[in-house]
Amino acid sequence: MKNNDLKLILNPRSVAVIGASAREDSVGRAVFANILFSGYKGIVYPVNPRFKSILGVRTYPSILDIPDEVDLAIVIVPNITVRKVIEECGAKGVKGAVVITAGFREIGAEGARLEKEMMEVARKYNISIIGPNCVGIINTDPQVSLNATFARPFIPRPGHIAFISQSGAFGVAALEYARKRDIRLSKFISVGNKADVNENTLLPALRDDEQTKVILLYLEDLVNPAEFMELSREIGEKKPILAIKSGRTSAGAKAASSHTGALAGSDEIYNAFFTQAGVIRVESLEELFDCGLAFATQPPPKSNRVAIITNAGGPGIVATDTIIRQGARLATLDERTKERLARVLPPTAALDNPVDLIGDAKEERYELAMRIVLEDDGVDGAVIICTPTVFTNLEAIAQTIRDTVPRYGKPVTVCFMGTEDVEKAAKILEEPGIPHYVFPEIAAKVMARLTQYGWWVKRPLTGIKKFEDVDKKKVEVLLKKAKEEGRKFLPEPESYALLQAYGFPLAPFALVKTEEECLKEAERIGFPVVLKVVSPQILHKIDVGGVRLNIENKDELLRAYREMLATIEQKIPQAEIWGVLIQKMIKGGKETILGLKRDPLFGPVIMFGLGGVYVEATRDVSFRIAPLRELTAARMIREIRGYRILEGFRGEERSDVEKIEECLKRLSQLAIDFPEIEELDINPLIVLNQGMGALVVDARILLTA
Amino acid sequence: MKNNDLKLILNPRSVAVIGASAREDSVGRAVFANILFSGYKGIVYPVNPRFKSILGVRTYPSILDIPDEVDLAIVIVPNITVRKVIEECGAKGVKGAVVITAGFREIGAEGARLEKEMMEVARKYNISIIGPNCVGIINTDPQVSLNATFARPFIPRPGHIAFISQSGAFGVAALEYARKRDIRLSKFISVGNKADVNENTLLPALRDDEQTKVILLYLEDLVNPAEFMELSREIGEKKPILAIKSGRTSAGAKAASSHTGALAGSDEIYNAFFTQAGVIRVESLEELFDCGLAFATQPPPKSNRVAIITNAGGPGIVATDTIIRQGARLATLDERTKERLARVLPPTAALDNPVDLIGDAKEERYELAMRIVLEDDGVDGAVIICTPTVFTNLEAIAQTIRDTVPRYGKPVTVCFMGTEDVEKAAKILEEPGIPHYVFPEIAAKVMARLTQYGWWVKRPLTGIKKFEDVDKKKVEVLLKKAKEEGRKFLPEPESYALLQAYGFPLAPFALVKTEEECLKEAERIGFPVVLKVVSPQILHKIDVGGVRLNIENKDELLRAYREMLATIEQKIPQAEIWGVLIQKMIKGGKETILGLKRDPLFGPVIMFGLGGVYVEATRDVSFRIAPLRELTAARMIREIRGYRILEGFRGEERSDVEKIEECLKRLSQLAIDFPEIEELDINPLIVLNQGMGALVVDARILLTA
Repeated sequence: MKNNDLKLILNPRSVAVIGASAREDSVGRAVFANILFSGYKGIVYPVNPRFKSILGVRTYPSILDIPDEVDLAIVIVPNITVRKVIEECGAKGVKGAVVITAGFREIGAEGARLEKEMMEVARKYNISIIGPNCVGIINTDPQVSLNATFARPFIPRPGHIAFISQSGAFGVAALEYARKRDIRLSKFISVGNKADVNENTLLPALRDDEQTKVILLYLEDLVNPAEFMELSREIGEKKPILAIKSGRTSAGAKAASSHTGALAGSDEIYNAFFTQAGVIRVESLEELFDCGLAFATQPPPKSNRVAIITNAGGPGIVATDTIIRQGARLATLDERTKERLARVLPPTAALDNPVDLIGDAKEERYELAMRIVLEDDGVDGAVIICTPTVFTNLEAIAQTIRDTVPRYGKPVTVCFMGTEDVEKAAKILEEPGIPHYVFPEIAAKVMARLTQYGWWVKRPLTGIKKFEDVDKKKVEVLLKKAKEEGRKFLPEPESYALLQAYGFPLAPFALVKTEEECLKEAERIGFPVVLKVVSPQILHKIDVGGVRLNIENKDELLRAYREMLATIEQKIPQAEIWGVLIQKMIKGGKETILGLKRDPLFGPVIMFGLGGVYVEATRDVSFRIAPLRELTAARMIREIRGYRILEGFRGEERSDVEKIEECLKRLSQLAIDFPEIEELDINPLIVLNQGMGALVVDARILLTA
Repeated sequence: MKNNDLKLILNPRSVAVIGASAREDSVGRAVFANILFSGYKGIVYPVNPRFKSILGVRTYPSILDIPDEVDLAIVIVPNITVRKVIEECGAKGVKGAVVITAGFREIGAEGARLEKEMMEVARKYNISIIGPNCVGIINTDPQVSLNATFARPFIPRPGHIAFISQSGAFGVAALEYARKRDIRLSKFISVGNKADVNENTLLPALRDDEQTKVILLYLEDLVNPAEFMELSREIGEKKPILAIKSGRTSAGAKAASSHTGALAGSDEIYNAFFTQAGVIRVESLEELFDCGLAFATQPPPKSNRVAIITNAGGPGIVATDTIIRQGARLATLDERTKERLARVLPPTAALDNPVDLIGDAKEERYELAMRIVLEDDGVDGAVIICTPTVFTNLEAIAQTIRDTVPRYGKPVTVCFMGTEDVEKAAKILEEPGIPHYVFPEIAAKVMARLTQYGWWVKRPLTGIKKFEDVDKKKVEVLLKKAKEEGRKFLPEPESYALLQAYGFPLAPFALVKTEEECLKEAERIGFPVVLKVVSPQILHKIDVGGVRLNIENKDELLRAYREMLATIEQKIPQAEIWGVLIQKMIKGGKETILGLKRDPLFGPVIMFGLGGVYVEATRDVSFRIAPLRELTAARMIREIRGYRILEGFRGEERSDVEKIEECLKRLSQLAIDFPEIEELDINPLIVLNQGMGALVVDARILLTA
């Protein structure tokens, strides 16, 4: 579907309402009435063979009877009739249809068949379909002014916020909420079952829509995550994208054979995905709009240092708490700033952030404080709080904020905690689009989200590192061999060889089959060493005595080698022994886990965490979707709770974090190059002190069936 | 102050407004007008020598000039005049005063002095003071109907929610919010600087107030936590107490010498405190009132199994997410329940929780579903969601909910996500007090909070275990010795002896001073053993080679003993060596940390966590304030993120959790018995498999200066 078509569909010059009705309380009447009474600038044609006119407008039996060209059809006929109607739309040359009718895929197999048939017809005629099972669309552009929904007859005032909803119920609730709070919108699009038009087709259309400055999404799933990622990374830099993704906790992690698999729940992957896509994920519809108001008008802050200006202590404390809890920082005011404040504020004022102007502050004091604070280079944005007292003139303060704030190019959120109606003051702020809220925690939370977006916009752009030192051929051979032998896993020596081929640093190792080989390799590797049995029948080596650690000398080595094989011979006589892996025993360093899991929706998911059962029990790991950019690898290491341990906690030296980054990027490249690798655990990668590198000590690779 | 006085102050038969004013925009006018026009059932006397009358009411030059008895004075004179006015109130025999005037402790030393002087006068005359620096009080009881505040002239409708605010700004915002949402209140009390009346004096008064059924608190600090705990544990069982405590993140953890000290931030302790006190802590004013509405009318649920009934998928998913994220559970419906639902619902309905009645559900379907679901013994409460469609009659559904729900004695929250105005339907629910919200996530969150309260009310009541096998005398002797020697710490052998005296299980140990003793004790204890040097000059033993682990036999022992002493002699020749601690080396088990830290506000704080640097870096620990009840000890172990490890994670055996509980309770008793113990770390307590006990392996005790 071409973007131009979608532009026309959202800005139609003429609309046919197929299934328009004169019957009270019918959807067909509601939609037609909404278009007719919402000030639509084009022509609307009701289509229904059963009525001569509807609401005083001449009705056509079929779309084919309309004498003029029709850009868009709104379809509200029974589900079994939709296909025929779309066929007629095609004959008429209509470019798109909004199918409000329900009873398709959402009701099961029979509905899915109807939906498929409808789409076959639509494709034949190159008709774009919005829906089915949707609420409709709204375009507030004064040149269009179209409300083609069955929601309450009301069209929001034109604004800069576009809202796309996958849930009809949430779409309607969102409109209702926008009406109550008088939130101005640019577009409202209910996408329903997303049979054709979806988030990925709409994002470019909204990018090109001049009216829209921020895009809000309510998502239940993603049609094509890779495409969404590409689009949102590009579009989100100019127009912030915020999303609610529901179904956070319902899915949970499924049983999986690898550590990575066991730890990667679908919601964690969605979080990783949105982070990489530059999409701000929020929790509720209220938060979505609270943020939308600010994102539509406020510049992204340079960094996350927030100042708070208040005339009451309590709200200042609450705002401080929220700022910090939400991951932003309280700005440290420059000494000069504090001196300047001291000169203009009364002695009882608090000059440290939060700056407390005291309850008798009037507009002049607000103005001086805002100027001085916003001029401070250490302040990236401000939350301005005013609790009305007998001394405050809220409207005058609003005027001051309106006149002062825009000069500094820094974002601001405002909280008027009013005793008196704040509406008049709010209107003054609304003009230039300065967002205001009733509670300080909301003003602060929105500011924290702005800093999150600011980080994204200003982040250093890094590429995807391509390692040229990899031996792709060797991996191909290893994987081919496994495939030919019908194996779904790689034995340890092969896993090691594969990782080595991709440049991972491995603890020195060898596969030995005799005592002589064993002694020879130990000499080469150097004590202490580890022995591990290699057998396709033995998955849990430790349980059968198949692992011997910390072998210090030749005597111990021979004894361990013999004992191990004897024990296994006795415990699992049927085991086919491929040999024994002898490996350098690494002492010191910190254990980390690197993992790969192929997700059916997102593809290769990369995991990072610290080693140990504790991490697994508390799920302190981070995820990203491959390919990883340079910055992505760096960030995913830093976002686990236990990162402090790698930084050198309690006087220890810093670990070689850069080497972990490199390994993560190599793993990403491997995941992209070889889709047949289904799961991969490097557990542990022992990371040494800064500059000393890291070593893979154990690895497990599973292949696709 | 007697509770009866406070009752009279909140329900006064006559009020003098000292500092009442006829000047527009003055606080003195606002307060007087509010009382006069809010329908006060008593007599209000304006007092001001500068006016003959105010708002048409005869004014008195001084309170002493009022010819009748006065129960309560509202004071709005300048701060320096307040003392004199209170003196006059005393002479007049007034029982209490609400001092609205600001400019006391909150402005610094000078104000603090004025406040102290005022209180001296008040105490002399036995006058209770609310404030100073407060907004005033409201009592909606129709027998009283008093609005003695300077907030907007409005008195909430009588209800069951009492609100106490320490912040004036939040108090005013709360009133504003209550007005906008038409939330009915019983009492509003702004306590300001809490010079006299505070949360601890008000809780008993509100317990005895028949109108009040739920108590909401906005707190910035606590006057006396121990007293608050006692009161809230008693009162909270009958009347739920919910609180916002601000200043969550500002304090942070201060530098401290023990692990426990380093981990215990003030906010974590507040969380522990509220948990033990049975107080539900919430995050925002909105949440406070959202919960207040439900807590005032809904019965506490038996357990946390929540059913969701909806007519749209999206909101059902969102409610599910919230229920789980907030710590409640989705009820598993009985097979019989599902069969019954199948008989009455259309085939496309979802019979599993969340029960989706489908968009065309009318009131009959809601009624049947509610009955069947609420009759299920596995359902403790329900969230009922209705997204209006053309088929729904919201008012009829509201009536059905109103008529059906109260029969089952289970709590319900309702979400009407309306396209049409929901006000009429909401009114229908309001009558019997069924709480309704605009968003499903809020209805679900409130239900989750209700289950939290339900747990509290129904929890098994456990006592404080008193161990009789402790040797208090021995501990006294040890502490006395340290005191006499001017030591602020106990050396390891003394710490062990102290813990042993209180019944803690210790790994076998001995203090030895010669090689012969060392060999003898090793024989007694059994290999493997550990050696640790004991010296008052050596705090960090490991750094100077003062610890030797895993000594397997006599030869190793002698070598280690000699080497250790030689190394130390060389590194710190001035160290005074008290001996060497020989201790059984414990293998296996899980490391845990038990700690005690004396908090200046809360007293003895007990900490629990798993061992290891990772726990410290991620702060995965739990706190409670001593004395610990039996259940408290059990809960604090289970609330750390890493608890799964003790339960037997990944096929390991369960640890002896009960032994940890016992140790925590012994630590609690020790903390109460000996206030001179300032900090105590048991790090680690190695806990063995279920039934095998646990062993203290290292401990550190610091005494008060």
